[in-house]
Amino acid sequence: MRLDESTWTDARDAETDLALLPVGSTEQHGPHAPLGVDSLTAEAIATAGADRYADAHDDEPIVGPTIPVGIAEEHRAFDGTLWVSEDTFRAYVRETVESLTHHGFDRVVVVNGHGGNAEAIRELCGRVSRDGDAYAAGYTWFDSVDFDEFGHAGPAETAAIRHLHPELIRDDRIDEAVAGAADGWGEWVAGTNLAYDSDSFTQSGVVGDPRDGDAALGEELLDAAAEGLSELLDAVARRDR
Amino acid sequence: MRLDESTWTDARDAETDLALLPVGSTEQHGPHAPLGVDSLTAEAIATAGADRYADAHDDEPIVGPTIPVGIAEEHRAFDGTLWVSEDTFRAYVRETVESLTHHGFDRVVVVNGHGGNAEAIRELCGRVSRDGDAYAAGYTWFDSVDFDEFGHAGPAETAAIRHLHPELIRDDRIDEAVAGAADGWGEWVAGTNLAYDSDSFTQSGVVGDPRDGDAALGEELLDAAAEGLSELLDAVARRDR
Amino acid sequence: MRLDESTWTDARDAETDLALLPVGSTEQHGPHAPLGVDSLTAEAIATAGADRYADAHDDEPIVGPTIPVGIAEEHRAFDGTLWVSEDTFRAYVRETVESLTHHGFDRVVVVNGHGGNAEAIRELCGRVSRDGDAYAAGYTWFDSVDFDEFGHAGPAETAAIRHLHPELIRDDRIDEAVAGAADGWGEWVAGTNLAYDSDSFTQSGVVGDPRDGDAALGEELLDAAAEGLSELLDAVARRDR
Amino acid sequence: MRLDESTWTDARDAETDLALLPVGSTEQHGPHAPLGVDSLTAEAIATAGADRYADAHDDEPIVGPTIPVGIAEEHRAFDGTLWVSEDTFRAYVRETVESLTHHGFDRVVVVNGHGGNAEAIRELCGRVSRDGDAYAAGYTWFDSVDFDEFGHAGPAETAAIRHLHPELIRDDRIDEAVAGAADGWGEWVAGTNLAYDSDSFTQSGVVGDPRDGDAALGEELLDAAAEGLSELLDAVARRDR
Amino acid sequence: MRLDESTWTDARDAETDLALLPVGSTEQHGPHAPLGVDSLTAEAIATAGADRYADAHDDEPIVGPTIPVGIAEEHRAFDGTLWVSEDTFRAYVRETVESLTHHGFDRVVVVNGHGGNAEAIRELCGRVSRDGDAYAAGYTWFDSVDFDEFGHAGPAETAAIRHLHPELIRDDRIDEAVAGAADGWGEWVAGTNLAYDSDSFTQSGVVGDPRDGDAALGEELLDAAAEGLSELLDAVARRDR
Amino acid sequence: MRLDESTWTDARDAETDLALLPVGSTEQHGPHAPLGVDSLTAEAIATAGADRYADAHDDEPIVGPTIPVGIAEEHRAFDGTLWVSEDTFRAYVRETVESLTHHGFDRVVVVNGHGGNAEAIRELCGRVSRDGDAYAAGYTWFDSVDFDEFGHAGPAETAAIRHLHPELIRDDRIDEAVAGAADGWGEWVAGTNLAYDSDSFTQSGVVGDPRDGDAALGEELLDAAAEGLSELLDAVARRDR
Repeated sequence: MRLDESTWTDARDAETDLALLPVGSTEQHGPHAPLGVDSLTAEAIATAGADRYADAHDDEPIVGPTIPVGIAEEHRAFDGTLWVSEDTFRAYVRETVESLTHHGFDRVVVVNGHGGNAEAIRELCGRVSRDGDAYAAGYTWFDSVDFDEFGHAGPAETAAIRHLHPELIRDDRIDEAVAGAADGWGEWVAGTNLAYDSDSFTQSGVVGDPRDGDAALGEELLDAAAEGLSELLDAVARRDR
Repeated sequence: MRLDESTWTDARDAETDLALLPVGSTEQHGPHAPLGVDSLTAEAIATAGADRYADAHDDEPIVGPTIPVGIAEEHRAFDGTLWVSEDTFRAYVRETVESLTHHGFDRVVVVNGHGGNAEAIRELCGRVSRDGDAYAAGYTWFDSVDFDEFGHAGPAETAAIRHLHPELIRDDRIDEAVAGAADGWGEWVAGTNLAYDSDSFTQSGVVGDPRDGDAALGEELLDAAAEGLSELLDAVARRDR
Repeated sequence: MRLDESTWTDARDAETDLALLPVGSTEQHGPHAPLGVDSLTAEAIATAGADRYADAHDDEPIVGPTIPVGIAEEHRAFDGTLWVSEDTFRAYVRETVESLTHHGFDRVVVVNGHGGNAEAIRELCGRVSRDGDAYAAGYTWFDSVDFDEFGHAGPAETAAIRHLHPELIRDDRIDEAVAGAADGWGEWVAGTNLAYDSDSFTQSGVVGDPRDGDAALGEELLDAAAEGLSELLDAVARRDR
Repeated sequence: MRLDESTWTDARDAETDLALLPVGSTEQHGPHAPLGVDSLTAEAIATAGADRYADAHDDEPIVGPTIPVGIAEEHRAFDGTLWVSEDTFRAYVRETVESLTHHGFDRVVVVNGHGGNAEAIRELCGRVSRDGDAYAAGYTWFDSVDFDEFGHAGPAETAAIRHLHPELIRDDRIDEAVAGAADGWGEWVAGTNLAYDSDSFTQSGVVGDPRDGDAALGEELLDAAAEGLSELLDAVARRDR
Repeated sequence: MRLDESTWTDARDAETDLALLPVGSTEQHGPHAPLGVDSLTAEAIATAGADRYADAHDDEPIVGPTIPVGIAEEHRAFDGTLWVSEDTFRAYVRETVESLTHHGFDRVVVVNGHGGNAEAIRELCGRVSRDGDAYAAGYTWFDSVDFDEFGHAGPAETAAIRHLHPELIRDDRIDEAVAGAADGWGEWVAGTNLAYDSDSFTQSGVVGDPRDGDAALGEELLDAAAEGLSELLDAVARRDR
Repeated sequence: MRLDESTWTDARDAETDLALLPVGSTEQHGPHAPLGVDSLTAEAIATAGADRYADAHDDEPIVGPTIPVGIAEEHRAFDGTLWVSEDTFRAYVRETVESLTHHGFDRVVVVNGHGGNAEAIRELCGRVSRDGDAYAAGYTWFDSVDFDEFGHAGPAETAAIRHLHPELIRDDRIDEAVAGAADGWGEWVAGTNLAYDSDSFTQSGVVGDPRDGDAALGEELLDAAAEGLSELLDAVARRDR
C-alpha cells in the first residue's frame, strides 16, 4: 500500500505493523544514466518487495514516499548532484521513521538505493531500535543480491534502469561513459580508501562497464532484490523486538 | 529540466542559474484525498511554472526532486501522517538548496505545497541568502493564487487532485469528509490560534467543503499557481542578489 | 504580580497557574523612536492585560521579566539593532517558559512586541504544549488589535510610545523619519516577499507615517491590546490542556 | 548611552567602540529580597560604570538592555526562579554580543550580576575574542569588589537593593530570612562542592546575614563596583585585541 | 615521537607533517581478555607503524595520546563497557585531529582498534579533508591484515594481547569464553544484520575461538598491521591533499 | 580496579557502586615537562586515591581509562597542545560517565588534572546528577591540596612528574623554562582576567619556578591529593543522591 496514494483512513484501517521507507539519492550516474537512479531503484524494489511479501503472507506492508536526497557529497564534482550532511540525513530519515512508528507501523525497513547512505541508515535504525519502542533495519540491495560487478552506474544500475525506465538511458553516451570509467571504487592502500571524492578516480563518474547491463539483467537483479527484501520483511515481522 | 531524469552532463550543460525545489508533505487530507496531496501539487506547479517561464524567457530552470516529508506534526492524530521536526526540515531543505547552489544554480525557488512548511522555508531561504553567495525564496501557492476557500483538503486541494490524478479522489467518502469538516482552520481568540493539533477542530481532517472543487477549478487554480511562479522566477532572475 | 519585584515566597503563595512572559526586541524604529519600542510595548501590554484579567476574574497572573533581544537580523543594516539566531531565540524563550511551568505556572502566554518573533514563538509554544505537561501560547498584539496601519515605527508604535514614554519620541526627527519611510513592508511578487533585510525597502527604517500616531491613539491601541490579552488569558485558563 | 532609549541614528553617530551588556538572573533571593536582584544590580553597575568611564575619558560607552534570565537551575527548588540551560545561555549572550560587534562596538564588557553565570560568560567571551574580530570580557562585581561576606541575598545584595530600590526589601521577613540562612555556600569536601541545588544547604535561600546590609553599605559596594568597571573599561579600550 | 612524553619545544622542532592518533575502546572482550584490548592494540600498532615508517623514510611521525572510549553501545549488556554516542565520538576525534593540524601536522592517520569506530572515523576524516586545509584518513587494522578469523576477542585479538601483555589474558576463563562464543558476528538475513546489541548472538561476548590465538600469532598479526600502517603513511605523505 | 585491565566479568562481579574517571589534557608544560603532565597526574591520583579508599573501607572503586584531551585551546600557541571545544568535552566526558552509571557504578568522581577542565566537569556532573539516577562530582587536585604555588608547569607539576616519571623532566631546559616564565596566571584588572591565550603572559609556557619542585615535594603533593580524593569518595559513598 503506497502511503502517498492512500488516505489517512486507509492507513488507519491497515492491519499491518510493517512499513517500508525507500531512500534514494540524486547524484551523478555517468553521462548515460539519470541523476535519479538510486531513488528509482529504491522505490521499485520497495514496491516489488512489499508486493511479494504481501502475496506470500497475507500482510500488506505500508510503503512510504521516497526520500530523494542522501549522502552524496562524494560526487559533488559532478553537476546536479544533490546532498545533505550526514547529520541532517540521519535526523531526517530517523524522524520520518519515528512518525511511521507513531501510528503503530513499528517494524520498519528502510530500503536504500545508494551505498553512501548505508552506514548512516544502520546508525539511525539502531537509534530507533535501542531507544524507542520500535524496530528498524536498513536494506541496501547491493548487499543482498549476489552479483560481482555493482560498481557505480555500471552494469547493475544501468541494467536496472533499462528495465524500469529504458528511455532514461542515453545510449549515445555509453561510449563516453565507458571511456572515462574506473575499474573499481576508490584508491586503496593497506585496506584504506584514500579517496573522499569520486572524481579522483573516475572521469565520467562511472565505475564498471555499463555495456554489460541490459534490461534482462536488470529485471533479474531487481527480482532478486525484491526477493531478498521479502525475506527480510519476514524476519523483521517475526523478530522479538 | 527535471533533475532526476537528467544526467550530470545535462546539468553541466544547462545554461540557467535558476533552480526550483518542490517541497511537499505526506499528511492527512481527509478520508477522500490522498496523503500525498501536497507533494503532488508542489511538483505539478513547479514543473508547470518552470515550463511557462522557459517558454517566455528562453531560459529553462532546473527542477529538483520533490521533498516528500515536511512539518506536519499538527496532523499526527490522523494515521499515516509523516513529519520531521522543524529543525530537521530546515536543515534538510537548506542543505539541499546549498548543493544546488554549489553547481551554480544560485537563484533557487522552493516551491511549497504545505502551509505548515511556509515559515520554515522563509527562514531557511533567508539563511541561504544572507550567509551565502546565492539567493533563495519560497513560493507557497496558497499565498499567490487569489481564492477565498483554500481550507485543508477542501475545495482547492480536492480540485487540484481531481485535475492531476482524478483516480486518487475517493468519491464515495466525500460525504464522510464533509460531515466531519470544519469551517475554518484553528481555534482563534484575540488573534491567536489556540490549537496546535488539527484534530482539536476537525473530525475528518478536512477544512472547507470538498464538494466545491471540481477538476475545472483545479486546472484553473494550478494554472494561476504556475503563472504566479513564472512571475516570481522572472523577479528572482533579475534581482540583484 | 511582577516576578522580578516579588520574592520566591510570594511566588510560592501565588494561587494562579497563569503566567505571562513579555518578549520584545532591541531594534531600529526609525530616527525618531527608541530601539526598545518592542520591549516597552510588550511589557506594558503584559502588565495591563494581567491587571485587567485579575480585576475581572480574581486570579492574578504572574508576569515574568521582559526578554529584550529577539529575531531582528532583518534590521541589521541599522545601527544598534541587536539579534540572536532563530534557533537560539526559540531555545531561550522555550526554556524560560519551561522554568515557569516547573513551578506550576503551567498555562503561559508569551506576550510579543515584535512581528519577527511571532512564528518562532508559535513554534516553541507548540513544542511546550505538545511535549510537556503544560500549555503555552503566543500573543502578538498586532494580530489582535483592529488597526489598518501598523507598519514599523509608524503610526501605531509611535503612538504607543508617545503614550507610554513621550520623552522617548524625537519630534525633531519625525520629518527625517517620514522622508525615508516606505509605504508597506517588503517587496512582494506573487505572494512572496523577496526582501530579507529591511534596508532594501526603507531608508529611514520606518514603514508608515509616524505623524499619524498621537498619544491618544497610543492609549487606545494599548487598551485594545490589553483587552485582547485578557480575553486570551480567559480562554487559556479555561482550556483543556 | 542606554541603547533601548536611543534611536538607531544615535547608535550610528556614537563615537565609541565600547559596549556594555548587563546580564542578570531572575532567581530567589530569600523571602525578603526580590527575584530580580541580579538584574537590578547588573543594570545599575553597568550604567554607573559607563558614566564614570565616560566622565573620565570623554568616551561614552553604549549600554545594552539587561538580559534577565540566566543559569539558575541551582535555585529551582525555590518558586519563581527562572533559568535556561548553560548551552542556551551561552548562545543567547554570545549572539547578542556579536550583534553589538556587527555595528562596530567591538570591545564589549558583559556586566554580570549572578555568580552562576560567570564561567559561562568567560567561555562565550573567549569564543568571541578568539574566533571573531572583536574582544569581549566578563565583569562579575563580586570578583572585583573587596568585601568578605557576599553570600547570597546576604549583606551585600540586600544592601545594594536597599540603596537602589528600598521598597523592594521586605523588612518584615528578614527574621525568616535569617532563620533559614546558611553560613556559607555549598557543601565542601576536599575542595569539591558536593551540592548542585541550593536547597540542600539553605532553607530560606539565603547565605549570610542580610541584617548586616544597610543602604549605606549598598551605596559603597555599588560605588566600588562601578569604579572597578570603569578601570576595566579603560583596560579593554587600550588593549591590543 | 610520542606526544604525551614530548615537550612543546620538541613538537615545535619536529620536522614532520605526519601525525598518528590511536583510537581504541573500553569494551567487553570476553571473560578472558581485558576491556582495554582495542586501546592497547591501537596504541601498539600506531607506535610500531610510526617507528617502521621513520626507519624507512627518515621522517618521524608524531604519535598522539590514545583515545580510550569509542562507539561501543552494542556491548552495553556486558558490564564495564564504556561508550559515547556516534555524534560525540565524531566531534571529539575530529576536533582532536584539527588541533594536530593547527600545529602543522596536517597529514593525520587515525589508527583504530575497534570495528565499531571505523565508519565514524571515515566520516570525520572526510570532513577534515574536504572542509579544512589538511588530509586525514582512518586505519583499521582488521581491514589491512590478511587474516580470516578476526571475530571479537577471538584468535586475533587474544593473540595480540598475549604478545603485548600476556598477563592480561585469563587462561582459566578461556573455556568459559569458548563455551559462550558465537561463530560469527551478527544475525544476517538478506545481507542485513538484524542485531544491534552483541548479547543477542554471543553469550560470553566472544566471536571465534580464542584458543587459536597464541603470542606468536599475535606478533605476526601486529607486525603485519604495523607494516600496513607504514605503507599507508607513505601514501599519505606523498598524496596531493 | 583498573577497568582497562579487567574483564567484563570482573566488572560484573565488582561489589562497588563507586567509579573514578581520570581526565587529563595533552598540552604544553614548558620546555622541560611533557605534554602529558595532566593525564599522568590525574591517572596517578585516581589510582592512589582509589587504593587508599579501598584499604580504609573494604570497597574497591572502579578506575576508568584516562581521557587524554581536554579544554586547552588557551595553550594553542604552543606546539603539540591538543584540545577540543568545551561542548565536545562536556559531551564526551558526560556520556562516558553515563555509560559507567549504566552498569550500576552510579557514584562517579571525575578526577581532573587540568584547571581548564574544572568548570566543564562541574557542569556535566551537575547534569548527570540532576537529570539522571546517579551522582557525579569532579575532583581537581589543585583545589584540594594546600599549596600556594601551583602555577603551570611550575613547582607542583614539575615535582609531581619528577616523582612519577623523573625521566620525563628535561633538566637541561629548566633554565629556559625559568627565563620565560610568568609569576602568575593571566592579566588581571578589577577581578577580571583579560587574557584568553597563555602566550600573552608567559613566553616559555611556564607559570612559577619549576626549580622549586623536587621529587620529594611531588610525592608529598600527590599523597595529599590521594588523601583528599579518598575523603571525597567517602563523602560520595555516603551521600543521599
